[in-house]
Amino acid sequence: MLAAICFDANGLVPAIAQQHDTGEVLMMAWMNAESVRETLATGRVCYFSRSRGKLWRKGETSGQAQHLKDFRVDCDGDTVLLLVDQEGVACHTGRRNCFFRAPRAGVLTEIAAPLVSPKALYGHD
Amino acid sequence: MLAAICFDANGLVPAIAQQHDTGEVLMMAWMNAESVRETLATGRVCYFSRSRGKLWRKGETSGQAQHLKDFRVDCDGDTVLLLVDQEGVACHTGRRNCFFRAPRAGVLTEIAAPLVSPKALYGHD
Repeated sequence: MLAAICFDANGLVPAIAQQHDTGEVLMMAWMNAESVRETLATGRVCYFSRSRGKLWRKGETSGQAQHLKDFRVDCDGDTVLLLVDQEGVACHTGRRNCFFRAPRAGVLTEIAAPLVSPKALYGHD
Repeated sequence: MLAAICFDANGLVPAIAQQHDTGEVLMMAWMNAESVRETLATGRVCYFSRSRGKLWRKGETSGQAQHLKDFRVDCDGDTVLLLVDQEGVACHTGRRNCFFRAPRAGVLTEIAAPLVSPKALYGHD
């Protein structure tokens, strides 16, 4: 598996998370070899946080975990697609997915509202 | 629109293409500011090819164009999601989408067959 993935110069590969049954694209994050290995071994999605410089077990703070249903590698091996079952919301803003801004009448507009407050997820705003 | 997108050090942002009606994730590629501008202006998806170092109007060689249905920017502005109507197949291997490899019984396995030969798309194998 790992041999089929072309990690970039920083040892990372982009990972798209998609809700397995509805097809909703939830978020995009990055994985390193260790996070791929852990995700496949445990069935719980683990990314690599570029800002924190360490493994990020999705939901470890917010409780909003992702359970792996399938793992896909693209034709060039430079992107992976995670089919997941998302607990609660994927986005740190409290929205179900991160892609909630779109142009409407030429203006970038929020097209989805938070389902839960960030304070409820993280204990602070 | 462009101000909301955080292009990386190379001036690029990852762009996920999803078939607008079925939810199928077709591919992931990269866009620069110029390709975002052109895509929004023309409604036909244009990426930036990192290997060729220039704009890549999807389908210009293969005929397999992507027509933009909606354009989404994520919470951090560092990924975009393109809802498209894909003509024919998205993958250069002739498959509908690029994510056709998955672990089965511990072995990375092709789970989709080409719908058209690369030769038919590009005039060569």
